[in-house]
Amino acid sequence: MSLIKRHEPRLIKFTPHINPYAYGSVLAEFGSTKVHITASVQESVPPFLKGKGQGWMTAEYAMLPSSTHTRSDRERKGASGRTQEIQRLIGRALRSIVDLNKLGERTIMIDCDVIVADGGTRTTSISGAYVALEIAIRRLMKEGLLKENPIKDGLCAISVGINSQNEVIADLNYQEDSSCETDMNIVMTSSGRFVEIQGTAEKEPFSMEHLTALIQCAQSALTVVVREQKAALASLV
Amino acid sequence: MSLIKRHEPRLIKFTPHINPYAYGSVLAEFGSTKVHITASVQESVPPFLKGKGQGWMTAEYAMLPSSTHTRSDRERKGASGRTQEIQRLIGRALRSIVDLNKLGERTIMIDCDVIVADGGTRTTSISGAYVALEIAIRRLMKEGLLKENPIKDGLCAISVGINSQNEVIADLNYQEDSSCETDMNIVMTSSGRFVEIQGTAEKEPFSMEHLTALIQCAQSALTVVVREQKAALASLV
Amino acid sequence: MSLIKRHEPRLIKFTPHINPYAYGSVLAEFGSTKVHITASVQESVPPFLKGKGQGWMTAEYAMLPSSTHTRSDRERKGASGRTQEIQRLIGRALRSIVDLNKLGERTIMIDCDVIVADGGTRTTSISGAYVALEIAIRRLMKEGLLKENPIKDGLCAISVGINSQNEVIADLNYQEDSSCETDMNIVMTSSGRFVEIQGTAEKEPFSMEHLTALIQCAQSALTVVVREQKAALASLV
Amino acid sequence: MSLIKRHEPRLIKFTPHINPYAYGSVLAEFGSTKVHITASVQESVPPFLKGKGQGWMTAEYAMLPSSTHTRSDRERKGASGRTQEIQRLIGRALRSIVDLNKLGERTIMIDCDVIVADGGTRTTSISGAYVALEIAIRRLMKEGLLKENPIKDGLCAISVGINSQNEVIADLNYQEDSSCETDMNIVMTSSGRFVEIQGTAEKEPFSMEHLTALIQCAQSALTVVVREQKAALASLV
Amino acid sequence: MSLIKRHEPRLIKFTPHINPYAYGSVLAEFGSTKVHITASVQESVPPFLKGKGQGWMTAEYAMLPSSTHTRSDRERKGASGRTQEIQRLIGRALRSIVDLNKLGERTIMIDCDVIVADGGTRTTSISGAYVALEIAIRRLMKEGLLKENPIKDGLCAISVGINSQNEVIADLNYQEDSSCETDMNIVMTSSGRFVEIQGTAEKEPFSMEHLTALIQCAQSALTVVVREQKAALASLV
Amino acid sequence: MSLIKRHEPRLIKFTPHINPYAYGSVLAEFGSTKVHITASVQESVPPFLKGKGQGWMTAEYAMLPSSTHTRSDRERKGASGRTQEIQRLIGRALRSIVDLNKLGERTIMIDCDVIVADGGTRTTSISGAYVALEIAIRRLMKEGLLKENPIKDGLCAISVGINSQNEVIADLNYQEDSSCETDMNIVMTSSGRFVEIQGTAEKEPFSMEHLTALIQCAQSALTVVVREQKAALASLV
Repeated sequence: MSLIKRHEPRLIKFTPHINPYAYGSVLAEFGSTKVHITASVQESVPPFLKGKGQGWMTAEYAMLPSSTHTRSDRERKGASGRTQEIQRLIGRALRSIVDLNKLGERTIMIDCDVIVADGGTRTTSISGAYVALEIAIRRLMKEGLLKENPIKDGLCAISVGINSQNEVIADLNYQEDSSCETDMNIVMTSSGRFVEIQGTAEKEPFSMEHLTALIQCAQSALTVVVREQKAALASLV
Repeated sequence: MSLIKRHEPRLIKFTPHINPYAYGSVLAEFGSTKVHITASVQESVPPFLKGKGQGWMTAEYAMLPSSTHTRSDRERKGASGRTQEIQRLIGRALRSIVDLNKLGERTIMIDCDVIVADGGTRTTSISGAYVALEIAIRRLMKEGLLKENPIKDGLCAISVGINSQNEVIADLNYQEDSSCETDMNIVMTSSGRFVEIQGTAEKEPFSMEHLTALIQCAQSALTVVVREQKAALASLV
Repeated sequence: MSLIKRHEPRLIKFTPHINPYAYGSVLAEFGSTKVHITASVQESVPPFLKGKGQGWMTAEYAMLPSSTHTRSDRERKGASGRTQEIQRLIGRALRSIVDLNKLGERTIMIDCDVIVADGGTRTTSISGAYVALEIAIRRLMKEGLLKENPIKDGLCAISVGINSQNEVIADLNYQEDSSCETDMNIVMTSSGRFVEIQGTAEKEPFSMEHLTALIQCAQSALTVVVREQKAALASLV
Repeated sequence: MSLIKRHEPRLIKFTPHINPYAYGSVLAEFGSTKVHITASVQESVPPFLKGKGQGWMTAEYAMLPSSTHTRSDRERKGASGRTQEIQRLIGRALRSIVDLNKLGERTIMIDCDVIVADGGTRTTSISGAYVALEIAIRRLMKEGLLKENPIKDGLCAISVGINSQNEVIADLNYQEDSSCETDMNIVMTSSGRFVEIQGTAEKEPFSMEHLTALIQCAQSALTVVVREQKAALASLV
Repeated sequence: MSLIKRHEPRLIKFTPHINPYAYGSVLAEFGSTKVHITASVQESVPPFLKGKGQGWMTAEYAMLPSSTHTRSDRERKGASGRTQEIQRLIGRALRSIVDLNKLGERTIMIDCDVIVADGGTRTTSISGAYVALEIAIRRLMKEGLLKENPIKDGLCAISVGINSQNEVIADLNYQEDSSCETDMNIVMTSSGRFVEIQGTAEKEPFSMEHLTALIQCAQSALTVVVREQKAALASLV
Repeated sequence: MSLIKRHEPRLIKFTPHINPYAYGSVLAEFGSTKVHITASVQESVPPFLKGKGQGWMTAEYAMLPSSTHTRSDRERKGASGRTQEIQRLIGRALRSIVDLNKLGERTIMIDCDVIVADGGTRTTSISGAYVALEIAIRRLMKEGLLKENPIKDGLCAISVGINSQNEVIADLNYQEDSSCETDMNIVMTSSGRFVEIQGTAEKEPFSMEHLTALIQCAQSALTVVVREQKAALASLV
């Protein structure tokens, strides 16, 4: 256990109802990182699902040009490999907690637009996307468009890493992320099961002991994320 | 004058310093319309200006997918004609009030990202872009990177239109804009000179009398815009 | 009025029937500027109009590579911002004089291909497009495909500008256009109502007096354009 | 020889000096087919030739949307396979008659824009491109930019085909081309040597006897093309 | 005849059944050149053929990046002009020997992927594509999906050229191809009729005598190609 | 440990020297899955590394259209999100075992072209890429272009998964992969340290016990992969 140096995430905040048009919306903040998240509902499904009586969920991710230390270009000639990887991750993770059969023939589109990027934008997006989804589903149920709640479990995510002193830390900010040896993103359900593990040795390959510590550190940090998600949703009544 | 029904714009608000990385930033609001605006500084100029000792200013404009009543797609296969038209307008208008020779060999890039679109996003963008630019220029001067202030005049913009009762109104919201007969955007300097006039008869062509009333209505509304810009900048010390 | 230095346009010429396949065609010349214009008829409408019983009109604009002083590249990776702006302007202006309900479920596509570009290509295009449209509509009526004439009014366009001596001139050629202070394009109906006004201060913002002079100058020049359009159409019997 | 039914091409016409900006220009007509051709000179070469002291020649080909019986779309998302094939053919053929070493480090760009397409647009383009090239080279020599004439021979092209009665005909118009069994394009020098042969059995494969007749028919037709090219160039003094 | 120096092609080999999923497959080798060819069957036709009761055949061609002496880039931003030209050639040639009416409403897609490119990749592709097609058609007939054999004749192709000594040679390898004066590809049926002739003077235009020798040389070389195709197909029973 | 049902991978085979032009090449087979892999050497580095005295390694991945059960389209309008994700993974993994400073200012480009795809194409690619890289490096050293061996450790990869009976299995084929609950790819060094872990719950989230079993199963299977890599390299002398 002594490999873990910091298991506490940065200050986490979910501010619901920031958009007047989408079914659900939230501003998710992990430290300085801010992501504007909306859940829009379309009464149709992609062609490959037409007539199957089930719904679909997918996600898009983008960064405002000025969200990064040095301005980054808009992705107007197609999403970059990194962007597509993150979008696929967010959509896949959300689908793992939703019973698409109970959603009916509709699509929920999650948009994650990063306002400020100080590390952990994909884990902030996933954690906030779950909150926006909950809000959207509650409204669909209140309006009678959904009879059963299709959400099977909560969803949360955190980044963990190994710093240059070989110590394990949670919720890396931009500077920590840039200099770390290993970077890992872990997505779990609120009930403590794994949805996605993505770990990469950026510099040196890592040992089994470090792998164990990274997972323990993430589990600990995620209890804080879940607590804040529940608090934000409870405040809505 | 009796053709003018409403010359007062909606509630206008400029909130500076909303971004930690850009040289200047502001959240500009005209009624429910909200635009996130940043002015970034790059110590280089485009190829066609290299070695000429002068600077450059340009702008980009985008809407978050959920900024509109019905979710709109991201422009990932190239900016649409409408987007390019607006970007060119914003950049051109800003260049008209800046002495590029005094800017030195650097580029100021204005990013206008629409968070909520309830009509007038291009005029809100231009009016806010001037505020973000002022903030960026003041910081460049404070840091000693600029010796002389390159800004020659203030810049403001408003939309005016002819409604279905043939009355002239200022600062149209989304619903008014969708149903109006004629739509006009006017960009002026703080000192009352014209920078850009773009008027389009969406349904019926309009008369000389209406043209005169549209211009007067815009001039009146712009005094409010200028007042709010000055207030926001004064508060910064 | 003394601000106006030249209200006479260059030599204007419309040569009809230059294309064997399109429903209507004309070579429009304003001075050295030459635009090859055709009006093609398609017996279908875009998806968003299907089944509504109304027609559609749209326009495309392009320049031959050798139409400009220095050869310009073909736009094979997508139309430029400038091209899209001009196409949208031409289409919008034409739709303002046509009753699309009387057109039936068909599309009229206007193609403006610039053969020689010596300033004013967009106003030459619009003025000629109206002539090509008239020819196409007359043929549709003669063939019995149209029962009622959907054209409500004529359409003409001219450029005006402020030169470096602060004088207002009409129908700028390439050299005048490159050096002018302010550039304005005005589209009007034959009956003298406004369809579109687009004025831009390229260098210095302009005053209310200049705005008034620009509009008067355009109105005067447009009487010549209308006269030549009528002459060309009269010659067709 | 009796397989040949028609070895005479349609009426051929070359009208020089149709463009005020390019170094050489010609309107080439084979029957109703009309191609607007210019030869532009750029004082640079593509990267792969930089510093080698030799020049380059290349060609672009496009059709106006209304040049065809049914309007065809502009190639704004990239040139089609057919267009690229034709462009490569034109450029390759022209380079075979030019000594690029004598051209100096400059590029001659040939633009072939089809105004009316009634069959044989690629052979009309090649035959006219040679005339435009001659005009441009003469002007470069007159201006002293070229000391030696880099043109080694004249260039001409014709289409031949086998019709549904198994007869060989020259210079097919659109209707003949659409219904023929075999279509062949032959490019030759003025002195009677082969530059390019492209023959395709569109329906049934063809025999050795037909191949011989196709080639003889082309040779005969090309004497007319060469005669008209010489006449057009002679008229220029 | 003395102009012909070498009419024997390189070692030719067709290895069938190299792919577990496609209806027909073959590895075609001409000397060191290797092409991986498959014939896939889709039970649908392109939109322009829907409901006409006939089938379609088309082809795609690509080179592995490391198939060439110097690694070449993947064509991920669209097929190059050369690639499109070759694909069109392969598809067109195959369609000339197939009765599409007997194929039924299905598409046969030929994929030619060059593993090693040592000259003649397009002729190797065509010769092998015929073998893969035969295998696919035999399987369709065995499975009862086709009642009549739609193949009307065999298909073979070879390259011939004029080397720097003005001699005619067959089946050029990469080095011979790079340095030859004239390059010609000839596609014929097994029964000796012409399907396609494409000859290009890369350096000097060529004479009628050389044209005759090129064709004779190709006819001779193609007897070897046909012999090997028959041997490979015979071995399948 | 009883959660693991199968820790033995399919038959693994590495066939070196399959390409005449690349510095290193291998055909890598895991069961029916076949990947054609080459390591090409370019004596330059990407712009962001110019002048830093270090080298670069990157990878591209593609599937032949007929490598899959149902033919898949070529990615000619840009690599798909999946393809980019795999390419990034392969390149990143290889860079983790190479000391780029010892490589000098050159780039090693790995091309992985899937000939047959029966599951595990990315792990087959990575395992084979290491073999191709070793061959290329040995040749660079033999030729004296490299003085020190830049490879720090071997590299191997395997897929593991949880099947529908909740059992853990290694090296999933296409059918197992399509129906599994959880899919995980693990990349390790020959010395047993982790380079990359990517685990995804395709259907149900998984427990800590299953995570432990997945990792143990992969470690066991990878001993076989390493054994076969060593055997293939030993055979080369």
